[in-house]
Amino acid sequence: MSQALVQRLQSELDQLWLVDPHTHINPLQAPSRTLADILGYHYYTELAHSAGIPREQIEEPGLSPRDKVGRIVPGLAAIENTVQHSWLLEICRDLFGFEHDRIHESNWERLYDQSLAILASPGWEREILQRSRLTGVFLTNDFDDPLAGFDTSFYIPCLRTDDLVFRLSQPETRQRFRQATGGEAWEVDSLREGIRKLFAHFLSHNARACAISLPPDFAPAAVSSSVVEPLLGALRHGRPLSASEQGILSRFVFWSLAEECAEAHLPFDLMIGVNRRVYPAGVYQGQDLFDSRCSLSAYAGLFNAFPRVTFPVSVLAHGVNQELVSYAWIFPNVVTSSHWWYSNIPAYIEPDLRARLQAVPQTKQIGYYSDMYKLEFAKPKFGMFRRVLARVLAEDFVMGRGWSETSAVALGKTILCDNTERIFPRRGPGRGT
Amino acid sequence: MSQALVQRLQSELDQLWLVDPHTHINPLQAPSRTLADILGYHYYTELAHSAGIPREQIEEPGLSPRDKVGRIVPGLAAIENTVQHSWLLEICRDLFGFEHDRIHESNWERLYDQSLAILASPGWEREILQRSRLTGVFLTNDFDDPLAGFDTSFYIPCLRTDDLVFRLSQPETRQRFRQATGGEAWEVDSLREGIRKLFAHFLSHNARACAISLPPDFAPAAVSSSVVEPLLGALRHGRPLSASEQGILSRFVFWSLAEECAEAHLPFDLMIGVNRRVYPAGVYQGQDLFDSRCSLSAYAGLFNAFPRVTFPVSVLAHGVNQELVSYAWIFPNVVTSSHWWYSNIPAYIEPDLRARLQAVPQTKQIGYYSDMYKLEFAKPKFGMFRRVLARVLAEDFVMGRGWSETSAVALGKTILCDNTERIFPRRGPGRGT
Amino acid sequence: MSQALVQRLQSELDQLWLVDPHTHINPLQAPSRTLADILGYHYYTELAHSAGIPREQIEEPGLSPRDKVGRIVPGLAAIENTVQHSWLLEICRDLFGFEHDRIHESNWERLYDQSLAILASPGWEREILQRSRLTGVFLTNDFDDPLAGFDTSFYIPCLRTDDLVFRLSQPETRQRFRQATGGEAWEVDSLREGIRKLFAHFLSHNARACAISLPPDFAPAAVSSSVVEPLLGALRHGRPLSASEQGILSRFVFWSLAEECAEAHLPFDLMIGVNRRVYPAGVYQGQDLFDSRCSLSAYAGLFNAFPRVTFPVSVLAHGVNQELVSYAWIFPNVVTSSHWWYSNIPAYIEPDLRARLQAVPQTKQIGYYSDMYKLEFAKPKFGMFRRVLARVLAEDFVMGRGWSETSAVALGKTILCDNTERIFPRRGPGRGT
Repeated sequence: MSQALVQRLQSELDQLWLVDPHTHINPLQAPSRTLADILGYHYYTELAHSAGIPREQIEEPGLSPRDKVGRIVPGLAAIENTVQHSWLLEICRDLFGFEHDRIHESNWERLYDQSLAILASPGWEREILQRSRLTGVFLTNDFDDPLAGFDTSFYIPCLRTDDLVFRLSQPETRQRFRQATGGEAWEVDSLREGIRKLFAHFLSHNARACAISLPPDFAPAAVSSSVVEPLLGALRHGRPLSASEQGILSRFVFWSLAEECAEAHLPFDLMIGVNRRVYPAGVYQGQDLFDSRCSLSAYAGLFNAFPRVTFPVSVLAHGVNQELVSYAWIFPNVVTSSHWWYSNIPAYIEPDLRARLQAVPQTKQIGYYSDMYKLEFAKPKFGMFRRVLARVLAEDFVMGRGWSETSAVALGKTILCDNTERIFPRRGPGRGT
Repeated sequence: MSQALVQRLQSELDQLWLVDPHTHINPLQAPSRTLADILGYHYYTELAHSAGIPREQIEEPGLSPRDKVGRIVPGLAAIENTVQHSWLLEICRDLFGFEHDRIHESNWERLYDQSLAILASPGWEREILQRSRLTGVFLTNDFDDPLAGFDTSFYIPCLRTDDLVFRLSQPETRQRFRQATGGEAWEVDSLREGIRKLFAHFLSHNARACAISLPPDFAPAAVSSSVVEPLLGALRHGRPLSASEQGILSRFVFWSLAEECAEAHLPFDLMIGVNRRVYPAGVYQGQDLFDSRCSLSAYAGLFNAFPRVTFPVSVLAHGVNQELVSYAWIFPNVVTSSHWWYSNIPAYIEPDLRARLQAVPQTKQIGYYSDMYKLEFAKPKFGMFRRVLARVLAEDFVMGRGWSETSAVALGKTILCDNTERIFPRRGPGRGT
Repeated sequence: MSQALVQRLQSELDQLWLVDPHTHINPLQAPSRTLADILGYHYYTELAHSAGIPREQIEEPGLSPRDKVGRIVPGLAAIENTVQHSWLLEICRDLFGFEHDRIHESNWERLYDQSLAILASPGWEREILQRSRLTGVFLTNDFDDPLAGFDTSFYIPCLRTDDLVFRLSQPETRQRFRQATGGEAWEVDSLREGIRKLFAHFLSHNARACAISLPPDFAPAAVSSSVVEPLLGALRHGRPLSASEQGILSRFVFWSLAEECAEAHLPFDLMIGVNRRVYPAGVYQGQDLFDSRCSLSAYAGLFNAFPRVTFPVSVLAHGVNQELVSYAWIFPNVVTSSHWWYSNIPAYIEPDLRARLQAVPQTKQIGYYSDMYKLEFAKPKFGMFRRVLARVLAEDFVMGRGWSETSAVALGKTILCDNTERIFPRRGPGRGT
């Protein structure tokens, strides 16, 4: 494959401005404050921990940001091979003027000071957004987020519903539900009414998606109100639910959310396959894994029941990508969505992307989201995807099928930029809900 | 990888004449009559539907062929990236003199007229067969197909048995069975006798394979007659079977077919992994999917029980390919067979083929079948496979292992051409059954 | 990708001396005695059998080595495409001066004689070790192996425990246990005491690992002594165990082994996923397969319970590699280990290696073991791996991430050489156990 061709395509793709359709950005503090916000990203803490740094050292309460960085740096040598480390180096070089190949115990303090000056400079947020060519950033908002204090046309709210579906039986979730909706969830009617209020709140603040992450054994199904009513009653009287009752309640709430999405014309992002707290002694956010024995078969009923709801689907296991491709190939309302977490490395992005580009309508693919917690990560993460995308476009389309470079770049733009606007349409005053 | 090398290998492979060992060709009307036969291929209708064209528009009763094409064309823009679309373009350019990059609303009518003239020209069937370098075409025949009116030495009958195995309890299937065999299937003996007659009928018409497609959860097993007898009795008295009884009957009929294959020295094509009607609102033939949680473990007992039956196995899920490679690697009677349906895109053909060529005896691999409904598709589909094959031969054998180009092409010929004759031998008058 | 770059990296990797961390070498007869030891490797017998040579011909009792080779040679033509055949050719060319492209019925006898002279030459063991650049070879020792008669600092004992875990209820295993430990296994206490003695025996002979192969449905769990005591009692009284009781006993012994590994600071090699005797009519060692529906989820409890035990994990199914990558990415005590058996072909090594190098700390990857039975196979098998490794280092690190060639080779050395010493440390007199 011609490297020059790949580079030409990549430099075209690098010019594109785009909306990042899934992040964990806190819009009130979007950039990093110190290098600790960057090295504290779970990829570095979990990899450094996996390579031998005790969790207690990394997460010692009361550590200053500088000390935290000092604790993680000794773990970097062992993870220099990882692609996540390459994001870190790219950030340090491109943003902080770092000029070495390695961050180690005798050069990190200077890097810390350099980065501190830059991160604290006025206008940094605007500058990092410019450099990252971002025209919008989707958020991940708790259902009781006030969505106040930021520009929702740029930092776009997204209703994250894991708590509602999986933790509604917990008193603190119910307390938050009460405060957010002004009502109780003691009956099916009031629960549904509350959910409607949450949707109304989010829609009135420019929300463009509902989202949830799901374990590999979740199986959506319609549940009748009469089955759920006694469960809510039990909760009201303080009786805890059995695991199977909890499962029924989860399916009911999940299905109700899908109904609201249909009502509100809101896409429902499904992030399928995560098992939580598989390694409970791991660092914060470094405890979850997956089970590759997972199938979209469990979702066929959902896709059939809600033909008007668009489901952008992310799968955690590379082994499920072919099912995702095939579901998106025949179901009009299933859309492929990015490369999630353990599948977000070039070794899996490349084969998964190749299959999608060969068999899913181009209008039904969300190329990439960053999943970032801090703005500095958009550039290296999208950069990684653009490199893979350029390779696949070069090999399969320009060389393999004789496409012009212009057409290949247009295909790249469709999945990187245009589809986000198409699939999560902005809601102008004229659209209503 | 040297592009020139790949091209040299490919042009050698392009010269080969071959038998297509699995198609859905109607031998009484093998070529397309109009462009609607081409654009009506489920790949285009399902992808266009997935991209937004309502099924009702595509499948409106009474549509003329020209109108049907006019309904599908607006959906093509969204699927230009797919490899299936590349087959379409190749057909239109190579066969119909189409000279544009895209088929769209202002050029399709001219294309329609051009193609109509060509498809209606005398000798088109012979010409398309010549251009496709086909020396034989396997069919997919219902068990009650009279197999009359065509040259069975070219259009080779293949006994497709899905109806017998999965729908024998349905009155219409039993009615067809009665008409085809002259007997009832009210007892085990008469059922078996009928099956024997079907085999005799097919063998006397040059059939070279028995075939079936199977759901991912099917598990073949021997079932004793005494267990089945009461089920057939129930059917005789009009009592419907439960799902589990139906499963028993299916396993019994399936096992009986394997016994007949052993008797008749007929290979038994297994196409493993399809779930039917997962998306019932989809277009015709665009409703089926699969579950990647599928394993050949369920077939080990069958392969052990019938050492003299050759089982060419196709798997729908890419994730099952390694099992297929490994089963064919140690079981003498398991043969790898082509790249089926959702796995029939270069993104999956290439890794699957690579593994097969590295670990399965070359004599036990059926490289490719087209699965086509109309003759015009043989060339682009085999062409796609030949391109991938040329790449793998170039990279793994010529460059990776120092093979001569001649040896590499010979390996390609073995799996593309020779093995079909070896694995599905022609039955001369001297062979009997 | 530049071939010259790949070759430069490969020739650097070819220079490295290393310890082979898993083999089935018999240290009392480590090299092949005749070509029959080479052609008798199960890869050739099983592939030749799969291609049509009857097992009875290959395994006829009383065959001389020369006759055995003569029986297998006719099967080689059909398997020339396999990578296993390429190992054979490489051995014959590099070691025995064979100059043809093919071993066939008219040249094998000369090859046999040439190889006999070389294999019988004095100093051959030393020479083949030198040529293979081996500085140590891990063995696979039965629990009752006396470990006598060889240099355990070079041929490194490894306690293989399949018999203890899965066959302790068989009289012959119990008899061997009695002889090896001097005690019975009629109670939990005496069973544990015996296991401790086995560990002490192995540790005093420089053992550096405990190891086991496991079926895909095995699920480790702690089992209380009070549940196991009656099972051992039943065995004492000659009552056979049910399958579920056998499963409990297996889990108990397995967990006890992990406890001893913790005590002894011994890594516990897990080789996960093999189903034994799936094809019982197959040749010796050519009867086992796997089920790709296998998940490391079943091992999470084990990894959590033994944070101080290092678990080098091999998976038989390529489809489990992403789980292995992800487990090793966050669990400090999970290490990726080589490319096992049905996954030991470049088609699977390359994607599996690529993912590991991109996402697992470099210190936690055992690049490769040969799994060989005879020393002559180290060179071609490691050679195959080095070629793939050079490709991945060239493509992903030098070209993809701008690493220097020196750094890329250093990464290769880390996973090929250094990690074996790091993960299976030598036990000097000062270390104790």
